[in-house]
Amino acid sequence: MDKCPFCNILSGKLEGTIVYQDEICTAILDIQPINPGHILVIPNQHIPDLASLPPDTGKQLFAVGQKLAASLRLSSVQCTGVNLFLADGKAAMQDVFHTHLHVIPRFEEDGFGFTFSPRYAELPTRDELEEIGFHLKEALKIVQKQEEQN
Amino acid sequence: MDKCPFCNILSGKLEGTIVYQDEICTAILDIQPINPGHILVIPNQHIPDLASLPPDTGKQLFAVGQKLAASLRLSSVQCTGVNLFLADGKAAMQDVFHTHLHVIPRFEEDGFGFTFSPRYAELPTRDELEEIGFHLKEALKIVQKQEEQN
Repeated sequence: MDKCPFCNILSGKLEGTIVYQDEICTAILDIQPINPGHILVIPNQHIPDLASLPPDTGKQLFAVGQKLAASLRLSSVQCTGVNLFLADGKAAMQDVFHTHLHVIPRFEEDGFGFTFSPRYAELPTRDELEEIGFHLKEALKIVQKQEEQN
Repeated sequence: MDKCPFCNILSGKLEGTIVYQDEICTAILDIQPINPGHILVIPNQHIPDLASLPPDTGKQLFAVGQKLAASLRLSSVQCTGVNLFLADGKAAMQDVFHTHLHVIPRFEEDGFGFTFSPRYAELPTRDELEEIGFHLKEALKIVQKQEEQN
């Protein structure tokens, strides 16, 4: 057995309900669904996080997630909304370190929701936003340069 | 003024902090951030939901979100995790009906989290998962056929 549960499902060592598969990614049903029909779209390769996810693989995860969102609405699940969610890093609530995009069917008043820090009510000023924006744009230049070099 | 706040930012009628822009999409800072540095990646066209989002535009939203996630980690925001989140439909907590991908910087114990329905603790049986999976695959065939016809 592999340490990664998703790799074990992909290799057939662990039971899983596969709803979609192509050369790049596979979609399986979450065994602890937020609502019935909760899907995980995973790359076929063991890719732990966003930093090591090839951009084209990321694009395909989203494209498949979008198709599955439409399928959930059309299927017997009959949800009226869908959340796409990806957790990157322990601080972001990532549990399995094989990157995965959640496709979560949603219903009115289904009991799923967010809790926020009390700080959430304090809105930033335009100056604060602009300062963060400036630093982000600087960091993005570095990220884009790194991408060009790869 | 347009009814859509994002369209007003894109046309310059409303102030916004733009951190990235290309021919397909634009990234702006959320004015009510879950954590400082919270970004929204939006299509340049007014596209209300996933059903009307061209797949290539969706792919670009994700690719830009991934780049910005790396930028957040590198920048002065210095987060240790990132969430990507998209709400499609009112039941899924969509607030602005110009589809947008949240890129949320995360920190250990930052106070952001989930609430679940009590039903969340009840795990489905393998048979229940397989039945949902069967119906989902049937619906996916229809979605893929529609996509081929477009």
